[in-house]
Parts: sequence; structure tokens; C-alpha cells
Amino acid sequence: MKKVDVGKRILGANETYALRNSQILNRGKKLCLNMISSPGSGKTTLLVRTISDLSDTVAIGVIEGDVQTDIDAERIRATRAPAIQINTEGACHLSAAQVNKALQELPLDDLDAVFIENVGNLVCPSAFALGENGKIVVLSVAEGDDKPVKYPAIFAKSKALLINKIDLLAGGLQVDFDLDRVHADARKLNKDIAVFPVSAKTGEGMQQWYDWLDAQVRSLR
Amino acid sequence: MKKVDVGKRILGANETYALRNSQILNRGKKLCLNMISSPGSGKTTLLVRTISDLSDTVAIGVIEGDVQTDIDAERIRATRAPAIQINTEGACHLSAAQVNKALQELPLDDLDAVFIENVGNLVCPSAFALGENGKIVVLSVAEGDDKPVKYPAIFAKSKALLINKIDLLAGGLQVDFDLDRVHADARKLNKDIAVFPVSAKTGEGMQQWYDWLDAQVRSLR
Repeated sequence: MKKVDVGKRILGANETYALRNSQILNRGKKLCLNMISSPGSGKTTLLVRTISDLSDTVAIGVIEGDVQTDIDAERIRATRAPAIQINTEGACHLSAAQVNKALQELPLDDLDAVFIENVGNLVCPSAFALGENGKIVVLSVAEGDDKPVKYPAIFAKSKALLINKIDLLAGGLQVDFDLDRVHADARKLNKDIAVFPVSAKTGEGMQQWYDWLDAQVRSLR
Repeated sequence: MKKVDVGKRILGANETYALRNSQILNRGKKLCLNMISSPGSGKTTLLVRTISDLSDTVAIGVIEGDVQTDIDAERIRATRAPAIQINTEGACHLSAAQVNKALQELPLDDLDAVFIENVGNLVCPSAFALGENGKIVVLSVAEGDDKPVKYPAIFAKSKALLINKIDLLAGGLQVDFDLDRVHADARKLNKDIAVFPVSAKTGEGMQQWYDWLDAQVRSLR
């Protein structure tokens, strides 16, 4: 039986759309960040707070990827930011073709930045370029401090690491999590990664993330 | 171009190995549970505590699936239980062929039950039968109470749901999580699912899980 190299063919089609997306975004000088994490790390809560806190300075639109439901897009729209929901109906990552369609539905001219909230999954989304300027990996402290060594690909490829839910570390030992270990392990995989310990719930640490984000937006102008 | 139905062909090969695994396990009257969850829900900690607490009554062996590292198998072996590590090198789920090889390496005659700890991923592993008697889904309260509706497949297919890290709900509002909502949403997808709110850290709720597990082992004798 002749072997068909399907992985390569699919990635080829994805790369074509990723290139188109990148051209659309570059032409408009829009920042586009592809957010990747496990389910429940707090990506949507991070976005809701970021959009609200930066509403006077950075206009953000969101492409929401989920296996099912439009719960997350509704949460984003409550901030009045535009959000396009993509349901993958079982697929474990967004494709560049899906993002291409969503980019055409977003009011791009009115935006400074587009966040793509990928399907909650620390493995598959890291392998598919969507045309973004950079990937952002989010890790909740409740997930444990061994994740960079156990899931290295996404940490090696990301521009920034948001370590979320640090409020669970406050006042003692609700969660065992060694921030220094995660810093060190992430930097071993990726010496340039920016690391932001934050709580999207309490706001702790968010200003450093906003400053970085603002610098990324300005660098494209 | 002729379309090749690759999904079907791969699933076919997987099903063949799953059937073989199932025959091996049935012949030996061994319980085999396939544990599936997001990264960091606490699967390994749950297993370590379960193995230790049941060491006098149920002999457990473990097949550990991870993208990289053998950290988890080492944690299991510290309990003196046998553990076989499989590294998927990037793949987002275990295959039945990998489990087949591991089953041949485990001292099956000395065991009552085999736990397969799948790769941390709430999407992909749910689509691949490994020859198990049942799937177990683990959800940490830190991941949020919207996961059954957002990732329905694994909740629909599992025999039991372990809601872990309930210690984070104690004494107030460290984590916002509506246990009743998760019960109701999981039962809507799967009326027979057994639900166990537990803390593998403090031991709370673990006895009900042990009773259920013991009944599953006995039912095969």
C-alpha cells in the first residue's frame, strides 16, 4: 500500500491560510496573539479584564475557539468588544482557514489588536500557525509547576507566559506551585519568553502584562 | 484527486488493538480504567493516594501517558506499584497499540486493576478506545464549572466523574465553582455517570470513590 503523507498535506493547506491571515493583519498593522492553554486556565477571564482595563488605549477584538457553545464569546461581548465564535465540533485546535473566515467578520479597521482564544488544549494548538504575530501560553497555578517540562512545545514557541490565578498562592499553601521553577524551566526552553505572574481575578500583576501588550501594539505602528 | 478516508483507517487499526487489549484484560478478569482530564487536574496525585490507601485490598498497576518525561511514572513507582511510562513525543492521546505493548510489560497476573493515565487533554483521548472497561474523567474545581457543556464528549462517555481539589472550595470563595451545576450538566449528558467530589490532597470524599472502585473490581470476579 502506498503511504500518503497526510500530515504534510494538511499542514500545507493550513500554512497557506496562515500566510493569508498574516498578510491581512500586517497590511492593517494589527497585532494578533494566539492564546493557548489547558481548559480552565482562565483565558476568557484574562481577556475580559484586559479588554476592560485597556478600553481607552487599545481596541481589542476576539476570535473565540471552542469545541462547543458560545459561552466565551458572550462573555467577551458583554465588554462591548467584538467577538466571533468558532465551534470546532470536536476538533482539538483552530485552523487558519477558520481564523481567515472570522477575520473577515471582525471590524478590523476599528481594532488595534486581535486575540485568538484557541481551544482549551496544551498540545494540539501549538502545532498549527494561524497567521498570528505571536503565541501566548497561559498556565494556572492550580495546574502544577511541572507543565513546562511535560508540555514543552508550546512554552518553546510562545512570546509570553501568563501564570494565572496567583491569588491561590496567597496567604499560605492552598496550592503547591513553585514560581521560580516555572520561570527557570520556561526560560530553558525559550530564553526570550516574557513571564507575567498575574491574577485576572484580583488584578495583581496585570499592569506589567498591559505594558508589554501596549509595547507590542506600538511596535507595529 | 481521490479522497482518502484516513480518519476511518487509523481508527480501524486502533480498534483492532483495543479489541486485543480488551481480550487480554477480560481473560485475566482485570479491571481497566482509562483516566482522562486536562493537564494539571491531579490525575497522578489521585492515583498515588488511591494505590496507597487500597494497598491491602486492590493491587493496581499503571500505564502512564505523557507527551514527554517520566515524572509521573516515577511518582507512581514511589508507591511500589508497577508503572509503565509511554512518551507520545508530541501526540495528544495514547493509542491502543501503545497500551498493548505496555500491558505485556506489566505483571498482569499480580494485579486486580490497571489504570491508564492518558495524556493531559480533554478533547483527543476521548475519541480513542484503548480496550478499557470504562473511562474516568477528572475535573479540578480550579478549571471552572462550565467544562461539561464546553467539552461534552468525554463526560458523555465516562463511567465516573471525579471532581478534584474540592479543598479549594473550603472556607469561602477561593475558587468559584458550582458543584450542583456540574452534577446536573454531567447527568444531562450521561444519566448513569457516577460523580465523586474529592480532594486527593486532604482525602475528603475519597472513601466513596474507593467503594465504587472496589465494587467494579468485584463485579469482574
